[in-house]
Amino acid sequence: MTMDVTFLGTGSAYPSPHRGASALVLRTEGDCWLFDCGEGTQTQLMRSPLRAGRISKVFISHLHGDHLFGLPGLLCTISLNTNPDPQQNLNCVDIYGPRGLRHFLRVTLGLTGSQLLFPYAVHELEPTADQSPEEGQLSLEMTAESGPLHPQERPGRMIPLDVSSDSYLLFEDKKFVVKAFRLFHRVPSFGFCIKEHDRPGRLKTEMLKELGLKPGPLYGRLKAGESVTLGSGRVVLPTDVQEESIPGRKVCIFGDCSSVLGEGALSLCNGADVLVHEATLGNEHREKAVDHGHSTPEMAAAVACACSARKLVLYHFSQRYKPSSLQKEGDEDDVSELKRQAEEALLDSGVEVTLAEDLLTLPIPVRRPR
Amino acid sequence: MTMDVTFLGTGSAYPSPHRGASALVLRTEGDCWLFDCGEGTQTQLMRSPLRAGRISKVFISHLHGDHLFGLPGLLCTISLNTNPDPQQNLNCVDIYGPRGLRHFLRVTLGLTGSQLLFPYAVHELEPTADQSPEEGQLSLEMTAESGPLHPQERPGRMIPLDVSSDSYLLFEDKKFVVKAFRLFHRVPSFGFCIKEHDRPGRLKTEMLKELGLKPGPLYGRLKAGESVTLGSGRVVLPTDVQEESIPGRKVCIFGDCSSVLGEGALSLCNGADVLVHEATLGNEHREKAVDHGHSTPEMAAAVACACSARKLVLYHFSQRYKPSSLQKEGDEDDVSELKRQAEEALLDSGVEVTLAEDLLTLPIPVRRPR
Repeated sequence: MTMDVTFLGTGSAYPSPHRGASALVLRTEGDCWLFDCGEGTQTQLMRSPLRAGRISKVFISHLHGDHLFGLPGLLCTISLNTNPDPQQNLNCVDIYGPRGLRHFLRVTLGLTGSQLLFPYAVHELEPTADQSPEEGQLSLEMTAESGPLHPQERPGRMIPLDVSSDSYLLFEDKKFVVKAFRLFHRVPSFGFCIKEHDRPGRLKTEMLKELGLKPGPLYGRLKAGESVTLGSGRVVLPTDVQEESIPGRKVCIFGDCSSVLGEGALSLCNGADVLVHEATLGNEHREKAVDHGHSTPEMAAAVACACSARKLVLYHFSQRYKPSSLQKEGDEDDVSELKRQAEEALLDSGVEVTLAEDLLTLPIPVRRPR
Repeated sequence: MTMDVTFLGTGSAYPSPHRGASALVLRTEGDCWLFDCGEGTQTQLMRSPLRAGRISKVFISHLHGDHLFGLPGLLCTISLNTNPDPQQNLNCVDIYGPRGLRHFLRVTLGLTGSQLLFPYAVHELEPTADQSPEEGQLSLEMTAESGPLHPQERPGRMIPLDVSSDSYLLFEDKKFVVKAFRLFHRVPSFGFCIKEHDRPGRLKTEMLKELGLKPGPLYGRLKAGESVTLGSGRVVLPTDVQEESIPGRKVCIFGDCSSVLGEGALSLCNGADVLVHEATLGNEHREKAVDHGHSTPEMAAAVACACSARKLVLYHFSQRYKPSSLQKEGDEDDVSELKRQAEEALLDSGVEVTLAEDLLTLPIPVRRPR
């Protein structure tokens, strides 16, 4: 199965003509999952090879505008490009994010008279108290009664922290298990871990032929993990005739943070194929970055190293860092310096560093069998 | 005083890479007033010669997302570019729009923890019952309790219809009087009429010299409309020594509509220098346009003609109409056809037609004395 990540916006704080606000898409065989949705995400989607109508799930890391203000408009535009008969659009778009997200969507869609033509549900992650350093207005709003369901809204879940694993189980299907973990930022912020299930190894067809088994339904049973009894009475176990299983890929996408909270993040993200982490400011601005709940390349590198990630992708750059393609000789704030800083911190660790840019697509190759 | 209009977004329904969602700026000597604020407006502002920080007033014609979803993000970005000490930012940004706008801003700014560094106030126009053809969810939301003031929010007014003039008086200052009028759309929609005060004509300096009056404080008193008594006892009236007054300019900006409601719109907009009107679809799609509460070029032309406007500017085009600069030979849906249709309807009327495009700036010259 092909799998890739496309960055739609890699800028922090606000969208600019050269860097969109936060948004990226994880695509697996045409199915698109959107992570964060800053203002202008729908326009960036139009510039990309992806189709907004393919977005089946949305994940919002935290409720800051540069990660969220594009969501009502995106949902409206998906709806405009949808079959006008709601009976033909039965697939529910699942939206995951911090508590308060449901209220945000109800009010923005409700006040603008936006009647979506497809069902959607908002599943809210319940933050823990230590995720909200600044109490007050925000908490008031987050816990406000959110009123009746919006038309086409389906009831969503409230997902509490699973204390034993220090993580949130969002869902599990045939291909993936998706969990969230806690981060430390100015407001409750989450990261997401998308883990593909391991797949059974290939059948050793040479060996099966030697046993007298021809391609057919018995092959299917063996692949499905069943044992098969031959005419001779010999029982063939799947493990006897199968290559080693193919480990599922793991993609970890961090929301804004200056550090992780608890044990969940590092243990979930261990061995990630791709770890996407913010690097808002260069190492020389560490104090300012931390003050604002953000990270430097060195801090992102430390997380990738602690997780033994294969690849660290940096994104969410201050708008002071122009994309390399627009960088002019002598310009200060060279974004490639952020990459260098992360690489320096990861010297000899084997972790590869990539700098995200708007509209960059990063393939995530299948792992080799163990 | 120089005065111009810059179109930031001329597309309907949603923003696209070639047409932003609705937004335009009326600029007078550096002071910028924003009319509508679709998603992506702040990015379009960055592409334009205008500065977001100069926006002192915002007018929202109606609460559809393609006119509104950019507002929370724009306010946040203005704030980021503001003096970090709120005590230095005492000028209140006044925001005018239909009832429900205040709640929209409180929830979007509140839930995203957006603490603006400048004061703002939302002044709501109270729609009349005949402006809400579709009752239900929308009305529920619009009349919802909007809770406590957001930090930095100042109390705003609720502006009812002035029945005698069939219009809403938003404010009057030394230079302008600004009113709103009612339109018919799927949700309550308004247009705005910005009328510059007439200015006194020039002093006839030759005549003043003949009367023995030298340039000085007496000139100022005459300009200010006071009469002056000469040494000879002769009383000089300002009207005796002044050229004719210079009529103020009038700019009328219509929100989405398929028609006007009541008498207010046409009488307010009479003699407009510039009348900005939507033309979502070509004449051949009139039925569809009206069904969706929109206008065709012919319909816009009829309004301009009824108002004896000098110039009709068409905007808010369906995204099917690419900008002329991107039009390829043989493409259907040529936007210049919309201009032709309006011109045809205005033949011999003397009304000039202009097609708005993103980032077009249109000067509004001072009128000649009457």
